Amino acid sequence: MQSNHALAEIAEVLRTRNRFVVMSHARPDGDALGCTIATALCLKQLGKDVTAWNEDGVPEKFRYLPGHEMVLRPPAEPQNFEVAIVLDNAVKTRAGKAVEAVAQADVWINIDHHITNEGYGDFSYIDATAPATGQILFELFREQELPLTYAMADNLFVAISTDTGSFQYPSTTARTYEIGADLIRAGVNVGELSQKMYESYPRRRLELLRELLNVLRFSSNDRVASFALSAETTKKLGIQADDTEGLIDYIRSINGVVAAAFFDEIGDGRVRVSLRSKSPRINVSKVCQLFGGGGHMLAAGARVKGSLAEVQEKVLHAIDHEFDQP
Amino acid sequence: MQSNHALAEIAEVLRTRNRFVVMSHARPDGDALGCTIATALCLKQLGKDVTAWNEDGVPEKFRYLPGHEMVLRPPAEPQNFEVAIVLDNAVKTRAGKAVEAVAQADVWINIDHHITNEGYGDFSYIDATAPATGQILFELFREQELPLTYAMADNLFVAISTDTGSFQYPSTTARTYEIGADLIRAGVNVGELSQKMYESYPRRRLELLRELLNVLRFSSNDRVASFALSAETTKKLGIQADDTEGLIDYIRSINGVVAAAFFDEIGDGRVRVSLRSKSPRINVSKVCQLFGGGGHMLAAGARVKGSLAEVQEKVLHAIDHEFDQP
Repeated sequence: MQSNHALAEIAEVLRTRNRFVVMSHARPDGDALGCTIATALCLKQLGKDVTAWNEDGVPEKFRYLPGHEMVLRPPAEPQNFEVAIVLDNAVKTRAGKAVEAVAQADVWINIDHHITNEGYGDFSYIDATAPATGQILFELFREQELPLTYAMADNLFVAISTDTGSFQYPSTTARTYEIGADLIRAGVNVGELSQKMYESYPRRRLELLRELLNVLRFSSNDRVASFALSAETTKKLGIQADDTEGLIDYIRSINGVVAAAFFDEIGDGRVRVSLRSKSPRINVSKVCQLFGGGGHMLAAGARVKGSLAEVQEKVLHAIDHEFDQP
Repeated sequence: MQSNHALAEIAEVLRTRNRFVVMSHARPDGDALGCTIATALCLKQLGKDVTAWNEDGVPEKFRYLPGHEMVLRPPAEPQNFEVAIVLDNAVKTRAGKAVEAVAQADVWINIDHHITNEGYGDFSYIDATAPATGQILFELFREQELPLTYAMADNLFVAISTDTGSFQYPSTTARTYEIGADLIRAGVNVGELSQKMYESYPRRRLELLRELLNVLRFSSNDRVASFALSAETTKKLGIQADDTEGLIDYIRSINGVVAAAFFDEIGDGRVRVSLRSKSPRINVSKVCQLFGGGGHMLAAGARVKGSLAEVQEKVLHAIDHEFDQP
């Protein structure tokens, strides 16, 4: 179970220790990278020796983050630190090779907003009501009067904005907006940064959307929308992991659609299935469990053996069955 | 030239007069309707006799706004009022049939954020630094201690959010975020309202996007992206005016694209051209002026005589010419 340490205790470690490593989960999103960089920059301001690692480095689309060049892929040879900080990472092993490259650390700090985080580490601070780990870091830096530079503000703004879908998701609170205001006063150029976050993607993403819309399919009396991406198309367009992110939202948002499904042929005879529901009546976690996957009631996934067409048929059939339940 | 009256003077009129009509521009967007409804609800709270008109009524996609049923199309027979309030409307005549249906009013009030508003009316308050007229109304209601109910908060939030692209455009300030926080504390359910604003559209909009992506074209060494909508496709898919809104942003956001163009065959042998630029080097207003249109440096439009293919060729050629300028 989680049992939070005071932010003051964590700030004390940051101020008194010297050799730090900062990490987050592999396949990092805006919250993971924004938090990693903001914390590394804060420690640098405090005059510390700082290392920042991510198993996947910094994906191309996040290279506008000021300070991103600090984040490296972890080395093969494990190293020693005084303090290891893990951010936005529910399960310690999900930081993957970054965690493995820490030979030894006197103190582990774990700061996160995932409800499933069990509070590993010597100091942990888990707030599942925060819409982003970036929001918790903002409170830490401000409350404990730690440095909060222009470049840190940019990183925290990206962390919070991307994890709330631009201040829109249900987890967003009045406090989140207040923090947005504070970060703008601290130097964030909201127009410029928003363009980099939301209005900039490779041409292949739009070509991918075109291919998917051309195979858009409706089932269960038009209450289910789905599309499937073949390995052939992935290869033809040079699709990378990031490119498919969020595409399911286009079809989930159609009026009258209750559930959306995305089928992605990932090779080794498997299909990655992503499901979304707009109604508690259709529990997509239950559907994914039938195929060895899991997740939340309204957002779930599974990796299923079989051809693209077979898996699509089976899963759509299982969803259709849900509509028949009393 | 603009010369602003004090918000206190405007509040005084709202408190002391009785028979009001509230209006905004035709083809209303979220700011126009949110402001119209919020003001009408405020006056109702003050116990006033309130009429709210819009030339186009309330488009289907805004029927989630609480109080939207107050907004009617103006009647054929002009009526008398004590006070006529015009919101988010730069030029008085753009409120069209709504303004024409006011036979007589003792006092005209004009509140707006468009820099081109010349300050018509007996009392005007124009703030071109405000990203939405909804932000000015918020300041009016709060500063002057006028009612600000739950339903009013929803309408102001929609006004501000839609006019800033969800708190993203360069016009967004720290104050805008502070107001977001205040409105959430006043009762806005940000998750629910955001879903209604941004994650809900008719199936035909996605079918339209598919058709457009299938004719997506790159020119000027891939620095220009464009697509064209034929009258035939408009008819086939049952496309309505609102459906095409914002589609040009999909292609403007492609990395490496400097200018985007959307060609819409509107009948009577004309094509509506919309141009966007990401660089001051490519002045799309100048291009549109060549074809009898106009606008801003980075966003402009024109209506051009000719077939869809002809107009597309001519305009893309003119844009290409811009790239050749020293």
